[in-house]
Amino acid sequence: MQKGLLIVISGASGTGKGTVCKKLLADLPEVAYSISATTRNPRSGEVDGREYYFLNVSEFKTWISEGKFLEYAEVYGNFYGTPLNKIEERLNRGEDILLEIDVQGALNVKRKCPEGVYIFLLPPSLEELKSRIEGRGTENPESLSRRLKNAVAEIKIGLQYDYVVVNDTIDNAVAQIKAILTAERCKVARNADKFEFEGGF
Amino acid sequence: MQKGLLIVISGASGTGKGTVCKKLLADLPEVAYSISATTRNPRSGEVDGREYYFLNVSEFKTWISEGKFLEYAEVYGNFYGTPLNKIEERLNRGEDILLEIDVQGALNVKRKCPEGVYIFLLPPSLEELKSRIEGRGTENPESLSRRLKNAVAEIKIGLQYDYVVVNDTIDNAVAQIKAILTAERCKVARNADKFEFEGGF
Repeated sequence: MQKGLLIVISGASGTGKGTVCKKLLADLPEVAYSISATTRNPRSGEVDGREYYFLNVSEFKTWISEGKFLEYAEVYGNFYGTPLNKIEERLNRGEDILLEIDVQGALNVKRKCPEGVYIFLLPPSLEELKSRIEGRGTENPESLSRRLKNAVAEIKIGLQYDYVVVNDTIDNAVAQIKAILTAERCKVARNADKFEFEGGF
Repeated sequence: MQKGLLIVISGASGTGKGTVCKKLLADLPEVAYSISATTRNPRSGEVDGREYYFLNVSEFKTWISEGKFLEYAEVYGNFYGTPLNKIEERLNRGEDILLEIDVQGALNVKRKCPEGVYIFLLPPSLEELKSRIEGRGTENPESLSRRLKNAVAEIKIGLQYDYVVVNDTIDNAVAQIKAILTAERCKVARNADKFEFEGGF
């Protein structure tokens, strides 16, 4: 069985990565979101290993010290983290895992999992990015200018990714990402077993 | 403008690469076959630069000495060759060039053009390959056994390619190759201009 793909999607804020990821998950039943670990209590209906991996603080700290997190943070007294060990388990079962993550975070993941598929989303133009950020309606001119400047700086980081997809329309972007996943599954490096013949390909 | 893709398709004999390439060209008008150079005389209706590049022997030998051929051979007193210089010209104009070539030849091309896309076709199984070779009806048991042995040796060379596509049905194989081409066009390395902003993406 082929190991699953770790699919990491990122992009400057305002490039619409959330919408693209939702559509991708809806279209591709074989792809699932990465599941975070947390120390907060499960809410009604939440299942361990489905919404979150629920840990107590002592377990969470052990996982930190054992390097099991790709990243973690404390938010209002609770810990949240992305557990690499759990992602690895799922990949080894052949599941494809989607990780939607900020620009810099994705590069940290790339150092730990170079065999992942790193996709950077671009807005169709700087003007479009500006109008998307303005469209949120919460920006004064100064903070808009700062956010645009940050976005341009973040976009340069995209040069360190594997693939770039222009999010001109959701359908185009999702179609290109699907093609990338198909191509990645065809990589020779992921298919060494096909070249073994004792007992067929 | 993005440079065109050099698409190199190969596979052991009997894997159906000719059929796959024909269907690919029929489906994708932006992809064209590589054009060979030859010293033989043009036949009626043949146009220089369309069917062949027609050279005289002196020109052909100059091209050889200048390293312009990916490969060349003399057949019944005429020279035939695959001119790298002409392929480069077309790639620089944004054309995608398809090169269907034998297993070992493709690796020579890869050394000269590492930015090409190297796709290795596999038969769905050794049994299927055997029956395809038998189906040609020209093999005695000894030569069949030798051809199969050669095919197995050739297939091991596929581990040095970028992608592997199992030719179980033409439609599946062609769909996977199309996805590979879409993905390759999304590679960051082929899209550095998209990260330049002075004047938009």
